[in-house]
Amino acid sequence: MKITIYDSTLRDGAQGGNVAFSVSDKIKIAKALDDFGVDYIEAGNPFSNPKDIEFFEQIKDVEFKNSKIVAFGSTRRRDIKASEDSCVNVMAGVGVKTVAIFGKSWDLHVKEILKTSLEENLNMISDTISYLTECGKDVFFDAEHFFDGYKANPEYALQTLVTAEKAGAKYVVLCDTNGGCFPDEIYEITKTAISVLKTPVGIHCHNDTECGVANSISSVRAGATQVQGTIIGIGERCGNTNLSTLIPSLQLKLGYECVSPDKVEEVTNISRYIAEVANIALQDNMPYVGKSAFAHKGGMHVDGVSKVAHSFEHINPSSVGNKRAFLLSEVAGRTTVLTKLADIAPEITKESDELKAIMEMLKAQEHKGYQYEAAEASFELLVLKFLGKFKEYFHIDYFKIIGEQAGTMQKAASAMVKVCVGEKYEIAADEGDGPVNALDKALRTALSKFYPEIINEISLIDYKVRVMDTGAGTAAIVRVLIESTDGMDVWTTVGASTDIINASVKALVDSIEYKLNKSINV
Amino acid sequence: MKITIYDSTLRDGAQGGNVAFSVSDKIKIAKALDDFGVDYIEAGNPFSNPKDIEFFEQIKDVEFKNSKIVAFGSTRRRDIKASEDSCVNVMAGVGVKTVAIFGKSWDLHVKEILKTSLEENLNMISDTISYLTECGKDVFFDAEHFFDGYKANPEYALQTLVTAEKAGAKYVVLCDTNGGCFPDEIYEITKTAISVLKTPVGIHCHNDTECGVANSISSVRAGATQVQGTIIGIGERCGNTNLSTLIPSLQLKLGYECVSPDKVEEVTNISRYIAEVANIALQDNMPYVGKSAFAHKGGMHVDGVSKVAHSFEHINPSSVGNKRAFLLSEVAGRTTVLTKLADIAPEITKESDELKAIMEMLKAQEHKGYQYEAAEASFELLVLKFLGKFKEYFHIDYFKIIGEQAGTMQKAASAMVKVCVGEKYEIAADEGDGPVNALDKALRTALSKFYPEIINEISLIDYKVRVMDTGAGTAAIVRVLIESTDGMDVWTTVGASTDIINASVKALVDSIEYKLNKSINV
Repeated sequence: MKITIYDSTLRDGAQGGNVAFSVSDKIKIAKALDDFGVDYIEAGNPFSNPKDIEFFEQIKDVEFKNSKIVAFGSTRRRDIKASEDSCVNVMAGVGVKTVAIFGKSWDLHVKEILKTSLEENLNMISDTISYLTECGKDVFFDAEHFFDGYKANPEYALQTLVTAEKAGAKYVVLCDTNGGCFPDEIYEITKTAISVLKTPVGIHCHNDTECGVANSISSVRAGATQVQGTIIGIGERCGNTNLSTLIPSLQLKLGYECVSPDKVEEVTNISRYIAEVANIALQDNMPYVGKSAFAHKGGMHVDGVSKVAHSFEHINPSSVGNKRAFLLSEVAGRTTVLTKLADIAPEITKESDELKAIMEMLKAQEHKGYQYEAAEASFELLVLKFLGKFKEYFHIDYFKIIGEQAGTMQKAASAMVKVCVGEKYEIAADEGDGPVNALDKALRTALSKFYPEIINEISLIDYKVRVMDTGAGTAAIVRVLIESTDGMDVWTTVGASTDIINASVKALVDSIEYKLNKSINV
Repeated sequence: MKITIYDSTLRDGAQGGNVAFSVSDKIKIAKALDDFGVDYIEAGNPFSNPKDIEFFEQIKDVEFKNSKIVAFGSTRRRDIKASEDSCVNVMAGVGVKTVAIFGKSWDLHVKEILKTSLEENLNMISDTISYLTECGKDVFFDAEHFFDGYKANPEYALQTLVTAEKAGAKYVVLCDTNGGCFPDEIYEITKTAISVLKTPVGIHCHNDTECGVANSISSVRAGATQVQGTIIGIGERCGNTNLSTLIPSLQLKLGYECVSPDKVEEVTNISRYIAEVANIALQDNMPYVGKSAFAHKGGMHVDGVSKVAHSFEHINPSSVGNKRAFLLSEVAGRTTVLTKLADIAPEITKESDELKAIMEMLKAQEHKGYQYEAAEASFELLVLKFLGKFKEYFHIDYFKIIGEQAGTMQKAASAMVKVCVGEKYEIAADEGDGPVNALDKALRTALSKFYPEIINEISLIDYKVRVMDTGAGTAAIVRVLIESTDGMDVWTTVGASTDIINASVKALVDSIEYKLNKSINV
């Protein structure tokens, strides 16, 4: 059975904390959603702010293959005609066919927030929908706070739905606006709503009890045929129904069709892309699409998955475009390590002495504070060195960093470094925000004399510091993770030391050596 | 009705990506969980790695008010006696009363992973539980993959439970180990399991379909009386049932009792504390406890909440110890700040201009990367300075740190510092593990000339670094938290800067000033 997918990343998603889209971000995301194949893209209020107004201007020239763009607005103000309400008229004139109109379904809101009568609220719903329908729009009615409204005054809440239907609404969407409901009640109340309507019913949930996905599934089981949410779940407060979880669950496990079957495996890609455009970190543990969604750490799990994949996986990772991962750690077994070696040293088997030696080395490194779970590039280099396959493209002969504070606590860090490449050497200096940044810049200056193209391609995208073994105060072991990219690939390297500078240098050197080995060694 | 809470942060939580606890972290977390009032704390395998072994040694001397510590292990190996299995014997001898034993309930796992017969697996369950019960332990049986097992072979899956019951298990825990289930099936299968048992039943879910919380609620509704999970939901892959969501939902909205009623409002605090100890960023949008859980951004929502709080809130934020926030206009938080001021500036009231000014200052500091949630000592100093009540006992005129690497990558950091106290000054130098450690030592040497007793009392017990605003590579803002003690009190201070050295110096100076102000000012 087909379930219509209605994505609100650009509207409700934009109301999440730390989210702010530019117009060009919005267009990028709309195109990606279209490509993925969602049915509707709710894009914003075409009158609320200059950005959204510009978006609706620009979007006219974009052609969409699968998705319809939806403009979002509310019922008319009280005590005027819909045709006299400037906001409603903007909706009437907006360059898209489908508009979503939200209205009140909870008597408390009508009385206390709108400060009008229950009857006038019904008129507002009816007038607005009829007028927009006459203007040629397909109107979806979002029944705001429908579930809370139903619990407070069921007759009235249902009356708002019937009123919208009579006025010509093409879809009636039940909203758990405050996100406080649970699956059982969503099921029962959806059933009741459907029983009084002929119009198809949609569901719009928030995640304030962490039940956004479960509630949406409940509603679909009760007969809702449209699900609203956002890819990666961003939205007001705790977010909206996470479509990147809901779509694979409905489509791969529960027998519904949300997007074209060949597109489900794109869900990981589109989730990461939207996170990238929104400039927010995708949670590693996000179901289906997170980096750790199929990452096994416990030795027993790793062993089990290697014997029978589905013994510890509820679904095949490739069906959603994600990958299985074995986290390299002290609790990891030989199987994990062997998997990592498949590309760089396929000759090593479970019985090889090399494997034993590498395992020992791994343990010894972890004891020093290294962790390769998130730093596979460093692990590869470690193995290449052990096997004699590593080529050293440079080494640091010495570096000096100076940090100082004059009377006013202003920042001042500088660094110099001498780099050797074969018989040649280069000395460079730079200053920066803190000693590591200064050293990073000096190192690049020196190395770009030898490998200009490759060095200029590399940029750091993330720098993480973790103090291990806390309790030893400022002498604790520090682990530094550096994530780098050349625009194509992304790799992570690790350094550990009691000295944060040295730990950073190790991770920096690994990052550059990794790229040099990849680019030149081929 | 009472629901028993079983927290596995220290065991299943430790299997989450990027989570690694030291022994002292584990003890801190156990104490916090005890204080919060969970019934059971699953702490690890007392034989799997040196850290857990040490933990079980150290925990013997700690007294718990509310919680029982649980050791976690598996059924015996196949084809031997339980009493001959070294791991089972460690469990028999471990210094805690309660042990959790996991065993296979899915025939696929018995055949393909354990490679033994269905009958021998039942013997393994039976023998292990009987033996440990004879040794005086309370044994909980974790039926691994119970739900998948039930779907594959219901008779056999139920047989494993009944076998555990007959062998003396005190609790039978149904595990959705792969996390792939949905609420409806959890409800039905839990019902069936309960119908064949007299022993109470627990539920252990994972979050691979984002239904960990919903599934646990379903199971409780079907009759389960123990819920396993982790505060803030960390755990293998997508994590475990998030207890910081589940507990408020069950207790405040669904009528169950999980912890003592006066403790529910501690859930935000303990969640943030555990995130801090684990050194992971608590998601802003986490239900109930996240910074944005009650943060309103949409203008309409802000307006509505101001008129009638519950119009846009499913629950009162203070009932879980969280606070409402308006993301664009920071009006919330005055009450919290006022509480913090009660000791040091009791004259300030909700209407004082000072309060407004302090709120502004706080906002400006947060903007620079400071955060005082875990650093109240620094906040106190900030307020004392603002009110003119702060006495500066020293200041740093300048410092220089030098970090360098000779040809062999050995560590070498040194620092000198000039400290002024009134008209006098002292210059000192030292070397150390990294520049911060060197500077810390030099600073103490200089200051101990002036305040020998006080300075010698202070020692640093923790040093944490968090890189904010990642994406700017090595030039990102760094926040440093330093925890100090004088043997009696413990206090935490914060520093922020793009330069890790400067951030550390700020936190160090605050730490010492705080102690000097407390000791001399009285």
